[in-house]
Amino acid sequence: MLEQFHVPEDLAVRVEPEALRNMATSLFQKVGVPQDDASLAADVLVTADLRGVDSHGVSNMLRSYIRGYNEGTINPNPVWNIERQSPSTATIDCDAGLGVIMGPKAMEIAIEKAKNVGLGMVTMKNSGHMGMVSYYAMLALKHDMIGVAMTAAGPSVLPTFGSELRLGTNPIAVAAPAGKDHPFVLDIATSVVAGNKISLARRIGSLIPGGFIADMEGTPIMEEGPLPERYRNLPMGSTRVLGSHKGYGLASVVEILCGILSGGGYAFSPESLAHPKGHYRHMVAAYRIDAFTDANEFKGLMDEWMQGLKDTPTAPGHDRVLVPGQPEHESELDRGEKGIPLHPEVIQWFQDISKELEVPYLL
Amino acid sequence: MLEQFHVPEDLAVRVEPEALRNMATSLFQKVGVPQDDASLAADVLVTADLRGVDSHGVSNMLRSYIRGYNEGTINPNPVWNIERQSPSTATIDCDAGLGVIMGPKAMEIAIEKAKNVGLGMVTMKNSGHMGMVSYYAMLALKHDMIGVAMTAAGPSVLPTFGSELRLGTNPIAVAAPAGKDHPFVLDIATSVVAGNKISLARRIGSLIPGGFIADMEGTPIMEEGPLPERYRNLPMGSTRVLGSHKGYGLASVVEILCGILSGGGYAFSPESLAHPKGHYRHMVAAYRIDAFTDANEFKGLMDEWMQGLKDTPTAPGHDRVLVPGQPEHESELDRGEKGIPLHPEVIQWFQDISKELEVPYLL
Repeated sequence: MLEQFHVPEDLAVRVEPEALRNMATSLFQKVGVPQDDASLAADVLVTADLRGVDSHGVSNMLRSYIRGYNEGTINPNPVWNIERQSPSTATIDCDAGLGVIMGPKAMEIAIEKAKNVGLGMVTMKNSGHMGMVSYYAMLALKHDMIGVAMTAAGPSVLPTFGSELRLGTNPIAVAAPAGKDHPFVLDIATSVVAGNKISLARRIGSLIPGGFIADMEGTPIMEEGPLPERYRNLPMGSTRVLGSHKGYGLASVVEILCGILSGGGYAFSPESLAHPKGHYRHMVAAYRIDAFTDANEFKGLMDEWMQGLKDTPTAPGHDRVLVPGQPEHESELDRGEKGIPLHPEVIQWFQDISKELEVPYLL
Repeated sequence: MLEQFHVPEDLAVRVEPEALRNMATSLFQKVGVPQDDASLAADVLVTADLRGVDSHGVSNMLRSYIRGYNEGTINPNPVWNIERQSPSTATIDCDAGLGVIMGPKAMEIAIEKAKNVGLGMVTMKNSGHMGMVSYYAMLALKHDMIGVAMTAAGPSVLPTFGSELRLGTNPIAVAAPAGKDHPFVLDIATSVVAGNKISLARRIGSLIPGGFIADMEGTPIMEEGPLPERYRNLPMGSTRVLGSHKGYGLASVVEILCGILSGGGYAFSPESLAHPKGHYRHMVAAYRIDAFTDANEFKGLMDEWMQGLKDTPTAPGHDRVLVPGQPEHESELDRGEKGIPLHPEVIQWFQDISKELEVPYLL
């Protein structure tokens, strides 16, 4: 489904990842972010673009972040603070710093703790948006650790049987290293579909499959049809019969581990609703593999198991079974070589914002 | 959906939980399980019955476990062994001991580690069936900890786009304490539906909703209809469009954390296929709440958040929004008072097995 988001090949302007990274870094610096943090934020965005997750790359998110800094809803110089910690845990008050910048810092703390005692888990409150959550999970890989990351956002999804929004799309990411093969990387929203997938359907006027959305009263729409003017997002599973209580339950777990455990509140709490852009809650964790088993044996077994999954005979109409992280890995190879395809409209935005902020145009 | 599994009220024979516990304990002892372990196993089963999870209670599982002990596929006196550990982690070789008995022991180790360093996580290999996984997660509650438990079983579910079984139903459980309210307890398979829900549909001849199963070639059957003779189980999400890659991905995470991380292999590995009953892999974990935030504040926030979820206005045709663990909590109150309803056929089995094994009949 990734390709649904991609710029049509005939329109795409291919841009060097390095140029995009430098451009994004300059823009972050111009709105007041210190250089190291600006590079970090740029790397999170460009990594999303490289991995084919365009919805979380520069085209969608950079504009929103720049706007947030300009409006003062995101703090470019947060005085973040570890509020409480133990040998394996920490809770960070992010002081409205962008999640994309705070995430790597928190994950480094989790990794350090895992080095010392086997596991590390860090919860984060009062933070901005986190972008592609698998970025933070993947930071564990080079340390031969399993990485976990999740983020709790504002209310945009119904609970099962409900008619009002109570949970965010609350994605969960898990990354685990393999030996010769690419790493296993899962990164999924706990809603049926990402919100921007539905916006795209509106833009191109395509029909919406049954099970994607509910009507405004909360009843799941189970027949394919045109997108209604207004609608509600459903938790993964779509209906109770097909398991929407599972999506709702997993979104709730994300809320507990990110929001309640950090003391940062929950999606529909008054504080969250008052400061939507500076009130995301996150959790990142690292598990040291050799605290459980030999790391090389683990990676060998990962190779063997993932190959077995890839070798699964396919259902009619499909030519291969994929492993989580495989399409993103293939995109990374392809775009690393050919450049990142941007829509001309995004290129235009870069030109405009460069002029507006008086930053050299680098693409 | 819980009620689908329940014995029709007019047939049900109500049995005292304590009598059922004693009866199950005697039977476990008779097949060679030491008394303490037998009580533990009985408590896991009867807790499932009390919580309305009949599929994992005495009626379904006790018979299977007794058979396993008699056939020698489960070891009544396992010499289990911590193969590797760190301040927050351990890996246990269960020596083919029943998961239901090994689970509480492993969780006690995880809790002890969490007391010391904040988090504890224990992986387990070479184990028997684990029953209702939320039992182990809930052991964390009285310590003001969040509990996690998962188990990786033999292949019974398709990967997205595949036509052969590669993953177990691989359930995930998470338990978190509230203050005045009942605890939050999520316990979900990563497949669309539990296998025995489909068997039940066959028994009562009811139609199967679209999205429940795939045909033998791996194509999801999206129209309601009669249950075909042979079929395949789908991962949560049913189809790629509705998110089956998420169910497949979560089942894979369970396989990694339980099977690969313990060194215990994976669902379709030759060792697993050779010893299906003694080759389950599990993971249990405990997170100490006050390693992150004040435990009373956490529980107060849980109360507030869960009440907010319960107060969500409902969609037409539904009279309330439930929180994970709420129906099970209500069942526990009801059955604790009125007794556990058993089918006359199960009562008959208890009478027969009592005679066969020369154990006093206690119900």
